[in-house]
Amino acid sequence: MTPSDPTRRAVVLLSGGLDSATVLAMARSQGFETHAVSFRYGQRHERELEAAARVARALGAASHRVVSLDLRAIGGSALTTDTPVPRARSVSQIGQGIPVTYVPARNTIFLSLALGLAEVIGATDLFVGVNAVDYSGYPDCRPEYLAAFERLANLATRAGVEGARFRLHAPLLELTKGEIIRAGISLGLDYGITHSCYDPSPSGLACGSCDSCLLRLRGFADAGMADPVSYQPGSPD
Amino acid sequence: MTPSDPTRRAVVLLSGGLDSATVLAMARSQGFETHAVSFRYGQRHERELEAAARVARALGAASHRVVSLDLRAIGGSALTTDTPVPRARSVSQIGQGIPVTYVPARNTIFLSLALGLAEVIGATDLFVGVNAVDYSGYPDCRPEYLAAFERLANLATRAGVEGARFRLHAPLLELTKGEIIRAGISLGLDYGITHSCYDPSPSGLACGSCDSCLLRLRGFADAGMADPVSYQPGSPD
Repeated sequence: MTPSDPTRRAVVLLSGGLDSATVLAMARSQGFETHAVSFRYGQRHERELEAAARVARALGAASHRVVSLDLRAIGGSALTTDTPVPRARSVSQIGQGIPVTYVPARNTIFLSLALGLAEVIGATDLFVGVNAVDYSGYPDCRPEYLAAFERLANLATRAGVEGARFRLHAPLLELTKGEIIRAGISLGLDYGITHSCYDPSPSGLACGSCDSCLLRLRGFADAGMADPVSYQPGSPD
Repeated sequence: MTPSDPTRRAVVLLSGGLDSATVLAMARSQGFETHAVSFRYGQRHERELEAAARVARALGAASHRVVSLDLRAIGGSALTTDTPVPRARSVSQIGQGIPVTYVPARNTIFLSLALGLAEVIGATDLFVGVNAVDYSGYPDCRPEYLAAFERLANLATRAGVEGARFRLHAPLLELTKGEIIRAGISLGLDYGITHSCYDPSPSGLACGSCDSCLLRLRGFADAGMADPVSYQPGSPD
């Protein structure tokens, strides 16, 4: 593993999914001392957080924090309410436009918390796994949004006022899922420890039919590889 | 009380303190249907939240939500850690520069959560009680910061993408504490139901010597009025 440089600290948003795990591997490969942060925000299950802890450990993060916040008090998404998670039979059937799994202002909320942590630990680099290819329906995955957040970060903080320069890295922004997977594999990442499913079985098997599973499966197909995670019997794996 | 217009919804950040109570009264006086949001973020005491609930009720807010988030996981402030709250003997002794009570990225975090709520309930106006006069040490109380957040809000959200225009109102920005108090009194606000102290006694009496109490007391003196809240014996009230 690349040695990390304690004078170059980065905060990495880590969900435990495929994308953010790849971003953590990329930040480490660039020599950053990485500090991962995950959120317990009223997800339907804790599998994501277990995966995040595994990934942080496996990729040599210098720290991993879990910040709890109750987004159910705000509501508005199939991911934090009892609205059914949408199911398609194939990627081409995934709804156009902004999906119901969109959590209002989620990236802004998570990036703001990451920014607070960055300021506390003296990091000026933030890494986030947003992607404009697969998730073009989310307004807060667009380059102009990310540029506006970086600008805000430099105005919002003591570090910014005192002359530090925050940089927001979104290294997956223009990559397809297949390209992301190939990048992670080339960095030695074991995707078997990640978790992507919105709606796993009680024993933790991925459903294979939510939007997130379908995009993941297509990504592995595009990369010409088998997905190492286990799917429920009868899923389109 | 001014009738509220359900087609003009506003989200108001409400701490339970003097400033945010005044902002809620101002939003109501402009005819907005107001939706208050408070945060349980690891403050040392719950008095603030009790005051917020009283204020929301007294000022006819259409709803009041409390969002829990654990900023202790991030740390970095005397308000959320065990660092002693600073005490001065007078306003002129309050430290220059950014105070230790600064919570990293707090306004960004709270505004992001308010933005998520606004999107859910169909509000396009956000009200926040930041003030550049008394709190010039906080980077996230500056006009350029607020303009950057408003710009981000319009890029971050489905409503913004679909043509809505978020507006961030900071009506206290250029007012002194005395002017804020006079404005609230003219709107019929009873400041006896608000809470400002960083470090109240177990029975809820304000200490009279933390930065927040000193600024409040000076504000009432400037406004030529007595503060209706009770202070601990021996405090400089």
